Amino acid sequence: MTHKTLADIGEFGLIERLKRFLPGSLPEDVVLGIGDDCAIIRISDDRVFVVTCDMQVDTVHFRSDHTEPYVIGRRAMSVNLSDIAAMGATPRFALVSLGLPEALSSDFFDRMYQGLVDRLTEFGGVVIGGNFSRTDKIIIDLFIIGEAHPDHILTRSGAQPGDRLFVTGCLGSSAAGQLLLSQFDRSALPSTFASLINAHLNPTPRVAFAKKLAEADIATAAIDISDGLAADLGHLCDRSQCDVLVRYGALPFLLELDAAIEWINQNNSITSRESLILQGGEDYELLFTIPASVSLDTLRKIANQTKTLITEIGRIAPRDAGRFLELTDGSNKTLSGSGWDHYSPNRA
Amino acid sequence: MTHKTLADIGEFGLIERLKRFLPGSLPEDVVLGIGDDCAIIRISDDRVFVVTCDMQVDTVHFRSDHTEPYVIGRRAMSVNLSDIAAMGATPRFALVSLGLPEALSSDFFDRMYQGLVDRLTEFGGVVIGGNFSRTDKIIIDLFIIGEAHPDHILTRSGAQPGDRLFVTGCLGSSAAGQLLLSQFDRSALPSTFASLINAHLNPTPRVAFAKKLAEADIATAAIDISDGLAADLGHLCDRSQCDVLVRYGALPFLLELDAAIEWINQNNSITSRESLILQGGEDYELLFTIPASVSLDTLRKIANQTKTLITEIGRIAPRDAGRFLELTDGSNKTLSGSGWDHYSPNRA
Repeated sequence: MTHKTLADIGEFGLIERLKRFLPGSLPEDVVLGIGDDCAIIRISDDRVFVVTCDMQVDTVHFRSDHTEPYVIGRRAMSVNLSDIAAMGATPRFALVSLGLPEALSSDFFDRMYQGLVDRLTEFGGVVIGGNFSRTDKIIIDLFIIGEAHPDHILTRSGAQPGDRLFVTGCLGSSAAGQLLLSQFDRSALPSTFASLINAHLNPTPRVAFAKKLAEADIATAAIDISDGLAADLGHLCDRSQCDVLVRYGALPFLLELDAAIEWINQNNSITSRESLILQGGEDYELLFTIPASVSLDTLRKIANQTKTLITEIGRIAPRDAGRFLELTDGSNKTLSGSGWDHYSPNRA
Repeated sequence: MTHKTLADIGEFGLIERLKRFLPGSLPEDVVLGIGDDCAIIRISDDRVFVVTCDMQVDTVHFRSDHTEPYVIGRRAMSVNLSDIAAMGATPRFALVSLGLPEALSSDFFDRMYQGLVDRLTEFGGVVIGGNFSRTDKIIIDLFIIGEAHPDHILTRSGAQPGDRLFVTGCLGSSAAGQLLLSQFDRSALPSTFASLINAHLNPTPRVAFAKKLAEADIATAAIDISDGLAADLGHLCDRSQCDVLVRYGALPFLLELDAAIEWINQNNSITSRESLILQGGEDYELLFTIPASVSLDTLRKIANQTKTLITEIGRIAPRDAGRFLELTDGSNKTLSGSGWDHYSPNRA
């Protein structure tokens, strides 16, 4: 008998721990079990289902006291669709499991549900079921089933040494937006920060881009950034059994980010560009690898077609080469894997 | 703008309400959407997936302070498997979404997870994914995918006037067990109540029986009893557009039930056999209908093979005939549909 708590073990320790209780082998139609953004079930020779779930909890993942219910619903769906995007799949079906306090107003419910449904509809999916339970806080737990061709699917596990590493969009915006919203009254924030606030409240799951990327069959691995670049790149490298070099100077961020950091730090120095970009999390951007031998023409075309910003940020290294951040002065720094951990004692 | 709360609307009002936000038509491979125990997705000409989710919350659906963690996990899985059983399907895949307090001990987690996995394994399913979130109370939200042949599936909607109504097992045991556990110290309870306690803590999902029933193609409708006989029979009748006559004297219950009611009522008269059997809920027995023209030989054979008690309890009536309970003195009483409602103000 140990007397550890979940806070001691951490979220990823918990994931390792539960594997003890699972059977050693999976049924042959389970292409992929625990360990990626989604599990994969083979349906036929030319079709797989990818399945994922993610629980969002009031005060932990969103704040019902100062966020529009429509925005809460839409964001919860986006977060889940991002996992479907990370596999290069098309969202199809959702089950909506809601824990709701009995004092919640029906108007709040209506608007939150509308936000969920609108975002799902936008990406071609449909709600086919769900359930309600009475809880003290609002809990949104979504189960999404996506569809893909087995030959055109992205996983975390195929990156090879020498592969070029790319990311969509800008990093750190969501974390900055979240900090701004948590520290200041929204009406007091300069309008220039709207893009950061929006990145936090209304992330765009990279469904269209990722699907085309998967169909083009040029990416060796992919993951969506939910826990922060450092942590999710760590997951990709773990699954691909490789290491990596990231060029810090290449990491894409919005110009407003530095101004927001200054604003946030006026009272206390609580954050930095580096920490927001590397550890901030909830970017819901796609991190992916392309072999160096592959021409970038197709990638550029897909990015143009889907109006997606892509940036090359580093290169996959052989296993045991170490995971490093190359700073702008040319020196290397160890890239620590720490990002969002639901049970990390350092997280609010 | 209305100012109603969810407590005003109730769980089933909420289900009606959300339908406003859903598209009028479903994709052609969705055989059945919201409104049954599971949704049904067509996979091929000879295969469907049935999908369901159910959120169980500490202090609402179980009591982590006086229930073994293994029992909590096993029961949560049974409750979900019961929905798969209600469709006559075979459990295949589960995603386990857990909300856990950070102060929870790792031993508690281990035993609860083991309970979940053992019960799933027992019925042939496998965990393929899931996620963890930090919550104040333990929340177990399970997403199960089952498999069936499209020609051999049970739904709530096919009952016809004249059909015979059957139920598996005994009614009211679980509700009595739950009352005993909530009102008395377990060590103070007579050992004769063990079967009632067990019915509450370790319900058996009727997977084996229901699968054979579906394959035999003799049942016109089925539902599992989670909200209580009266409420779930109401759902079956609503979906089948019919009414019903239930013979109160035919309803099966354990002999220990009356003794337990007497024990519970020693201080205050808080319950009755009728309320436990009709409204108690959480029986997880199967309620189903068979046309009067069908010989009962096959049904008896299936019951024997799967060691399942079955009892004929009434008959389906034409729509607008009314829903009645025939009492033992021959008089009829309106069968009210009230059972478990997560937002009913009368529920603890």
